[in-house]
Amino acid sequence: MAQLDQTHDPNRRSWVETANGADTDFPIQNLPFGVFSRAGEPARGGVAIGDQIVDLTAALRLGLFSGVAREAAEAATGPALNPLLALGRRHAAALRGRLSELLLAGGTESGRAPELASEVLVPMRDATMHLPARIEAFSDFSCSIYHTRRMGGGNPRPVFEQLPVAYNGRASSIRPSGTPVRRPLGQFGPSGSAPQYGPEPSMDFELEFGAFVGPGNALGEPIPITEAEAHIFGYCLVNDWSARGIQFFESALGPFLGKSFLTSVSPWVVTAEAMAPFRVPAPRGEGQRQPPAYLDSPQNRDEGGLDIELTASLLTPRMRAEGAAPARIVRANFKHMFWTMAQMLTHHASNGCNLSPGDLIASGTVSGPEEDSKACLAEINSRGETPLTLPNGETRNWLENGDEVSFAGRAHREGAVDIGFGICTGRVEPATVVRQ
Amino acid sequence: MAQLDQTHDPNRRSWVETANGADTDFPIQNLPFGVFSRAGEPARGGVAIGDQIVDLTAALRLGLFSGVAREAAEAATGPALNPLLALGRRHAAALRGRLSELLLAGGTESGRAPELASEVLVPMRDATMHLPARIEAFSDFSCSIYHTRRMGGGNPRPVFEQLPVAYNGRASSIRPSGTPVRRPLGQFGPSGSAPQYGPEPSMDFELEFGAFVGPGNALGEPIPITEAEAHIFGYCLVNDWSARGIQFFESALGPFLGKSFLTSVSPWVVTAEAMAPFRVPAPRGEGQRQPPAYLDSPQNRDEGGLDIELTASLLTPRMRAEGAAPARIVRANFKHMFWTMAQMLTHHASNGCNLSPGDLIASGTVSGPEEDSKACLAEINSRGETPLTLPNGETRNWLENGDEVSFAGRAHREGAVDIGFGICTGRVEPATVVRQ
Repeated sequence: MAQLDQTHDPNRRSWVETANGADTDFPIQNLPFGVFSRAGEPARGGVAIGDQIVDLTAALRLGLFSGVAREAAEAATGPALNPLLALGRRHAAALRGRLSELLLAGGTESGRAPELASEVLVPMRDATMHLPARIEAFSDFSCSIYHTRRMGGGNPRPVFEQLPVAYNGRASSIRPSGTPVRRPLGQFGPSGSAPQYGPEPSMDFELEFGAFVGPGNALGEPIPITEAEAHIFGYCLVNDWSARGIQFFESALGPFLGKSFLTSVSPWVVTAEAMAPFRVPAPRGEGQRQPPAYLDSPQNRDEGGLDIELTASLLTPRMRAEGAAPARIVRANFKHMFWTMAQMLTHHASNGCNLSPGDLIASGTVSGPEEDSKACLAEINSRGETPLTLPNGETRNWLENGDEVSFAGRAHREGAVDIGFGICTGRVEPATVVRQ
Repeated sequence: MAQLDQTHDPNRRSWVETANGADTDFPIQNLPFGVFSRAGEPARGGVAIGDQIVDLTAALRLGLFSGVAREAAEAATGPALNPLLALGRRHAAALRGRLSELLLAGGTESGRAPELASEVLVPMRDATMHLPARIEAFSDFSCSIYHTRRMGGGNPRPVFEQLPVAYNGRASSIRPSGTPVRRPLGQFGPSGSAPQYGPEPSMDFELEFGAFVGPGNALGEPIPITEAEAHIFGYCLVNDWSARGIQFFESALGPFLGKSFLTSVSPWVVTAEAMAPFRVPAPRGEGQRQPPAYLDSPQNRDEGGLDIELTASLLTPRMRAEGAAPARIVRANFKHMFWTMAQMLTHHASNGCNLSPGDLIASGTVSGPEEDSKACLAEINSRGETPLTLPNGETRNWLENGDEVSFAGRAHREGAVDIGFGICTGRVEPATVVRQ
């Protein structure tokens, strides 16, 4: 069983009042890591609590940490969290434990609250969030059998049930939530016909869930499934923006330009420790499913899954002008995925491929069995046949310029405090004219 | 026309005698960049000349460079050439010009030869070669129509002639020539049947040609075809080792574990300047071919191709025991590729994807029309039906443990001095047993 300790105690409240509301993504039970900056200051590591950020560099200056927790905080003072990820989960857990103590209402350290509030907390509204890590490799899996079926028009290929299918994504164009999404230029058109070249006509999103790799492995040394969890440092939301015209036209060796123009991630890394209360058995799929031995373990079977509701909302320019709230267009759950994150990671390294701290592994579109859990427009519109209808009567087959897509994630369980992932958002901008 | 200057003068000879033989890859007309180290010393940039390496750090210490050439040399003193690549071709050309002067037999600087020989030259036999750059992204194209036809059992998909097909490779497992090739573990078997799991049974090589990206582009800003050459810093040999069982079994979203266990590159970056004499018109393909406008320019049509003979040799354990020389098993030429490197680069960035200094772009298997130009075993053996027969009577469908595959490249043109690429070699080692 994933280890629970006092940091998960649902009765814990923080002296940071905004951390105690039912709606916050960042109660004291969460404490995700990210990289922030304030105007004119260098980017550095922080931890979210309510609507505030704990500035780890400032906290170190006050001498608040010792031992392993201090080593962890020191590894988080730079512009990317890779050194912290490399230290691994034991270090993150120690720092989490100490931060939980420091932020606890009525705790032994609560007398220091005024000092901490003035010296160590940075309001989120004053901060710019950056990518949490220098992402040197991005691997995108396709682990929802519902997505695969709907996209393939029926049954997925047999290989889908035999291994976690994946392709190498493009790491250089991953950007933090909020980065504008420029509509790409490219070739598209029915396969075999004379292609068109111009702005992508079929812009789509894909609601995905991501994991940041911790220590990783040396080249040639696979990671056994029994050790996989130690290499999954934490989680984030991923929007695998997809240019369907380009993607379907170019498709021969997998996705390339249809995806590589931008991928958005939420800026907070929710640690594996914070997710411990939300573990569920690995999905069994339909029928008597037996994963291959190298992807099977009792721990993975019993608690390899994660119960996280993932939602997507859409705000169109007209809705914005009308003052309407974003419309929720997807409600899915990661627990329906066919393969677990541990299985994805172990499969990835099974041929000896070396994974490194800060590598991003994404799950693929997290579509579930329900009608409202279709987690991209290509599924929702059945390739253009059943457009999405919004509350104000507008319809969408694909995203138009000015459309803004926002993801949220929320873990919920009886007897635990809900935790969230912050936002992953992006607005589609017109293509630019290119010099030829 | 690609610019020729006195550095290309075929009459130039060096006072480094080994640079003047007909067989050397590294005459004074070449001067490729690489990263080397000697036992106990840090890795740093150097330039190949005959069987020697010009230690750029030592040369700087002697004050041999000024101006732009000095800036270039200073950018090459670290363990990776990325800063030099970022400066771009003008800097590389200035340093090349100065080095050509310093190494020239009978030149104005030849009186310094004894001093340079003792202070600045490092014998290759005393050096270990490293990756020339920190490769953050690796993109593998598939630009031989002959390879595509033979692998696909006939005609390639129409898209092959409409754009340079590519997939994202895995950068973390790229290693310099000489790194052992551990046979990967994985799932394989006929699609749809119960798969096997174990050591890959069908180990293959792919003879490819690579380009290192120079300055690159910002996200969202495509690189016009007219500017593409400025972003191609230089070239190397690439062995895209392929586990065919894993590759064909997993294939759904393109190559993943079938390739990501190891990719080998030759350690010397032959600059675009050194390749200037060997430019040829872009291949026209068959019939009246008109590339899309964004991939077409007069310069690309007239001199977008490169005339480079690429060969692969095989040495088996029995040949090694018998004292036999490696057997040449492939002779291909890059001039037959359907798309040019400039077209690959411009297509890659056409959707706004940002390319960075040190990114590696590979061409795909460089198979040509001739029988002996099939540039991987899968083509040679027609998927197991026509095994390769070696001079000693041994046969091979696929690589066996102990087999060593070595690539060489050689540019030749009437009126120019031949230049080469050094070696790209690797020996297949047995799979290791994995803890489960």
